[in-house]
Amino acid sequence: MRGTVLYAPRDVRSEERPDPTIVEPTDALIRLALTCVCGSDLWPYRGIAPIDGPTPMGHEYVGVVEEVGSEVRLIEPGQFVVGSFFASDNTCEICRDGYHSSCINRQPGAPTGSQAQYARIPLADGTLVATPGMPTEDMIPGLLAASDVLGTGWFGAVAAEAGPGKTVAVVGDGAVGLLAVLAARQLGADRIIAMSRHEPRQRLAREFGATDVVTERGEEGAKRIKELTNGLGAHSVVEAVGTQESMMQAIRSTRAGGHVGFVGVLHGVEIPAEEYFFSHVHLHGGPAPVRRFLPELVEMIWNREIEPGKVFDLTLPLEEAAEGYRAMDERRAIKTLLRP
Amino acid sequence: MRGTVLYAPRDVRSEERPDPTIVEPTDALIRLALTCVCGSDLWPYRGIAPIDGPTPMGHEYVGVVEEVGSEVRLIEPGQFVVGSFFASDNTCEICRDGYHSSCINRQPGAPTGSQAQYARIPLADGTLVATPGMPTEDMIPGLLAASDVLGTGWFGAVAAEAGPGKTVAVVGDGAVGLLAVLAARQLGADRIIAMSRHEPRQRLAREFGATDVVTERGEEGAKRIKELTNGLGAHSVVEAVGTQESMMQAIRSTRAGGHVGFVGVLHGVEIPAEEYFFSHVHLHGGPAPVRRFLPELVEMIWNREIEPGKVFDLTLPLEEAAEGYRAMDERRAIKTLLRP
Repeated sequence: MRGTVLYAPRDVRSEERPDPTIVEPTDALIRLALTCVCGSDLWPYRGIAPIDGPTPMGHEYVGVVEEVGSEVRLIEPGQFVVGSFFASDNTCEICRDGYHSSCINRQPGAPTGSQAQYARIPLADGTLVATPGMPTEDMIPGLLAASDVLGTGWFGAVAAEAGPGKTVAVVGDGAVGLLAVLAARQLGADRIIAMSRHEPRQRLAREFGATDVVTERGEEGAKRIKELTNGLGAHSVVEAVGTQESMMQAIRSTRAGGHVGFVGVLHGVEIPAEEYFFSHVHLHGGPAPVRRFLPELVEMIWNREIEPGKVFDLTLPLEEAAEGYRAMDERRAIKTLLRP
Repeated sequence: MRGTVLYAPRDVRSEERPDPTIVEPTDALIRLALTCVCGSDLWPYRGIAPIDGPTPMGHEYVGVVEEVGSEVRLIEPGQFVVGSFFASDNTCEICRDGYHSSCINRQPGAPTGSQAQYARIPLADGTLVATPGMPTEDMIPGLLAASDVLGTGWFGAVAAEAGPGKTVAVVGDGAVGLLAVLAARQLGADRIIAMSRHEPRQRLAREFGATDVVTERGEEGAKRIKELTNGLGAHSVVEAVGTQESMMQAIRSTRAGGHVGFVGVLHGVEIPAEEYFFSHVHLHGGPAPVRRFLPELVEMIWNREIEPGKVFDLTLPLEEAAEGYRAMDERRAIKTLLRP
């Protein structure tokens, strides 16, 4: 099959790779309907997260089940499925609490290399959610978004306790941040402040439900949020970047007693605990337990209540994955769809 | 009047000081029934938190109102009152959310110097809670505990979301940690693990409701908590120390999706965000908004449902404050009562 491999920083190749097969009796094989490049793929692409030799890329996926292992009970060949980037059993105590990405049997980064034609999905029964039927073509990008960026933005908004009566600020205007805006809107927030200085992203944020846009960053950004909230700060802030500056911007934009939901993968960040102590801010986040939210997200997309697929603003054939990475790296694209 | 002043590390003096007076029309003057030494007083006593010249000590207080300013409406001379160490208006948006210690009109460290015979309490209406009548002598230590250590331990347990069905671990066996055990019990926790290696404190922890005692600390302590909780960690962990080791012990003792409530004043602590990101642990804490809990705490003490005054294991005349500090510093006493 055709797959995407990162050989070194900025060296992405589309090449022939071995077809995946059932390895464990709990596996499923899927034929990908669509796949895409994630903002988090840019960390190794830029050389910030080191790789250990040629690395198959991609962890977001939707598609049709081709084959299942002998112990798979709930998922069947022919179903259209969406899954999360952490394989989980969906039955352990931690999954039952909703933290599938900390499942005691979790397999992070599963599948390995979904920027491809086929993928092996471990723990299929606990990881995959089948759609009610075959989706129409226009619905598939939204379902693909659910497998990571929508699920992650949603978790950020839930972790920040976005809801009725709340002012929500979102730090980060990548796909996750934009979908956190959409999530905050769906969760009933009164006011949603998108922090972005890129005009096309501001437009999409407004389309997804942002009521305000703030272009300042860091200290200035936090100050602006306070000005907009009677000097107090937002009730809920979603951190969707993962740098020291964005994390501090999030904490400093939040009122005492408010909540920061952080979903940007933190790289080299330290939280100064003494400042944090006196902030009275709740912190919660981490790798999104997307599986917790998938059933409701799939239903909303199926019923056309939300259109998260709008974050894809570039579509390329799978063979041109390298250009898809470049476009995102240079911020020419928010998120790239790859058509296998 | 007689008051207590810290001149330099380990130099505590009991001396004549000017009687406090009404300064603002929202002030009250109280005559202290009892006062005490706080674990946090040991930071400047030990020279870890620097002082800027001779510093009147004490921020915990109960007593009888002597006089009120012209704008005080709810508090009257002759009432027996308990208050918090942060003066708060109890009416602003932040107080209404329950974060009185971040009140927009807060006065931290108020009163200034309650290890004395009299104290001025700012924002009396928003800071003080009157008891239903004159308490009996044996009830007064419990009411004094409510003004800080009980309120702080209670906030820790609430921030850690202690409650029915939960296993709660408490890091720290000072008065705050011990009262977090009591709080967890009152809040209905199933299992309460006190982390302590001091036999008298272990005994009091069990008396307050601890079901288990763990003597290991740091990495070993966290490992032991995991062993006791099916490898997962506690649902709720109260951090009542404030050091790097104790904070990491708390985070690492908590299961994915669980809650750390931190109330130990953090000194020079940095939270490594990458490890924290993958822990899926909720963090919340800070200076306890004691005023939020005072009405219910006073009621429980009044009805003799709880006896938080048991944390006081040394009583001295106010004049011997220096010995009270020494006994706590050397861990000969958990907490020292001073009798004005």
